[in-house]
Amino acid sequence: MIETVQLREVGPRDGLQMTKTILSTEQKLEWCRREVAAGIVDIEVTSFVSPKIAPQFADAAEVARQALAIEGCRPAALVPNLKGAQLAIDAGIKSIYFVISASDAHNRANVRRTTEESLEEFRRIIEYRDAHSGERAWIGSGVATAFGCTIQGEVPEKRVIEIAAALAAAGADGINVADTVGYGDPRQVRRLVKAVMDEVAPLPVACHFHDTRGLGLANILAAVDIGVRSFDASLAGIGGCPFAPSASGNVDTEGAAYLLERLGLRTGIDMSALMALRQDIERWLPGEQFARGIGLAGLPKR
Amino acid sequence: MIETVQLREVGPRDGLQMTKTILSTEQKLEWCRREVAAGIVDIEVTSFVSPKIAPQFADAAEVARQALAIEGCRPAALVPNLKGAQLAIDAGIKSIYFVISASDAHNRANVRRTTEESLEEFRRIIEYRDAHSGERAWIGSGVATAFGCTIQGEVPEKRVIEIAAALAAAGADGINVADTVGYGDPRQVRRLVKAVMDEVAPLPVACHFHDTRGLGLANILAAVDIGVRSFDASLAGIGGCPFAPSASGNVDTEGAAYLLERLGLRTGIDMSALMALRQDIERWLPGEQFARGIGLAGLPKR
Repeated sequence: MIETVQLREVGPRDGLQMTKTILSTEQKLEWCRREVAAGIVDIEVTSFVSPKIAPQFADAAEVARQALAIEGCRPAALVPNLKGAQLAIDAGIKSIYFVISASDAHNRANVRRTTEESLEEFRRIIEYRDAHSGERAWIGSGVATAFGCTIQGEVPEKRVIEIAAALAAAGADGINVADTVGYGDPRQVRRLVKAVMDEVAPLPVACHFHDTRGLGLANILAAVDIGVRSFDASLAGIGGCPFAPSASGNVDTEGAAYLLERLGLRTGIDMSALMALRQDIERWLPGEQFARGIGLAGLPKR
Repeated sequence: MIETVQLREVGPRDGLQMTKTILSTEQKLEWCRREVAAGIVDIEVTSFVSPKIAPQFADAAEVARQALAIEGCRPAALVPNLKGAQLAIDAGIKSIYFVISASDAHNRANVRRTTEESLEEFRRIIEYRDAHSGERAWIGSGVATAFGCTIQGEVPEKRVIEIAAALAAAGADGINVADTVGYGDPRQVRRLVKAVMDEVAPLPVACHFHDTRGLGLANILAAVDIGVRSFDASLAGIGGCPFAPSASGNVDTEGAAYLLERLGLRTGIDMSALMALRQDIERWLPGEQFARGIGLAGLPKR
């Protein structure tokens, strides 16, 4: 039996966070539709953040509404706070992601709260969700800067595990260990992600890697080796974090898909359709830097 | 005890094979001197190939002579045939690399011989070396296109193992399994390189990866996992193979060094000195494409 692996597209959210061009609502939806057609159904379609902070997500409710109507699509949204979670739930989103930075300095820069304050906010989000009638939304949380921080430097692994445990205790449906600034390495992945998995079991643990220092795909390999079967990626590798200097480049979706398939895992992805979409995304975002690798070189001759 | 790993610089040979600019003899030697100062002592400094085929190596004998005079440097040379081996031995080179493609089609394109004819040539080279008085030169051979070929497509793993065995039987001092066109993946590395190691034991087995499809560093990780402790790399990731279409981009030396150190292996490399040299190499080679990753993003803050 071939094992499956989940590849979650975060380009329309994480990817568009730092681009110079703001895509139209229709472009974002075309991205989602074509990615679903290419076999990627889990898509972080937007962020319910104040349009004053991130004007590129001013159409969050509309993107959510229309993405929910795409057959086969499971749209997710990022929420920075309770207000965002309320908006996401009101919009009908069933997969909600919150993020807490293990680095206090990064968390303050990102959402102007201490890590502890963000944990309290997460508890309020879970309470709000639980008090809400209707279909229960899945709420996961990322632990950002889990492998180090460009502001604070080293981040104690103990702290990452503590935060993951606190999120689990607060009722998180899943934990996402995130290398927000591309500091992680395979040895660290095997040690830290394994420790988080052990801590929060049986909660599912996903990984979110950036390729800033070239180790994105090596880190996915390391995570696969210890049993991780869910990864974030961004088409053409666009994105980063606006509050983490020089943290450009998510792992590219096409590169991750290629690696995972070559490792014998089933992604269900149509690589040709994905690469064709990538080419259009490149045209839509002039002046950005895009991942090389498989998207540029093409599939091997067989 | 911290285990050491050998990182072999192939930039002055493999890297310069496809560049538009021909470096001066003095630039090549500055490259070698500064790389030795940065801790990389094994350097493939040139190729003893006909200047009609590769004018960038017309100064091979001079580069070899002066590189041999660099304190601490162990210069190596590539030789495509017996003539080249004679020239390399005459020049005093003590580390000689021959290459045979596991893909017959690639071997013909590369040296206008079948794989079998190349094997015979390798036997002649070993005979010549053995008949020669003086300090015995170390002669290894690469098995190129071991993971697939852009001309032929799939390359049977059985064929790769057979060629490695034939090279070992012919007296090779080491085998280098080479992913000349960037087709390899970590699972294949673990399976095929392990099989080659088992076949030629106790001969040392090294790996030579290209990053064409983004898996260069993931492949090094996979090889480290199965016990490989010797890797080729090219500063700034320059290079490729002129007879393998779209095969650009060796694994970058700085990226490989960063990964290997982060895996807890000792490379003995001064990363800052290496990155400073990379910047000069970039200036020397205008219009080329260079690796991103660590060389661009810089070391993490600690």
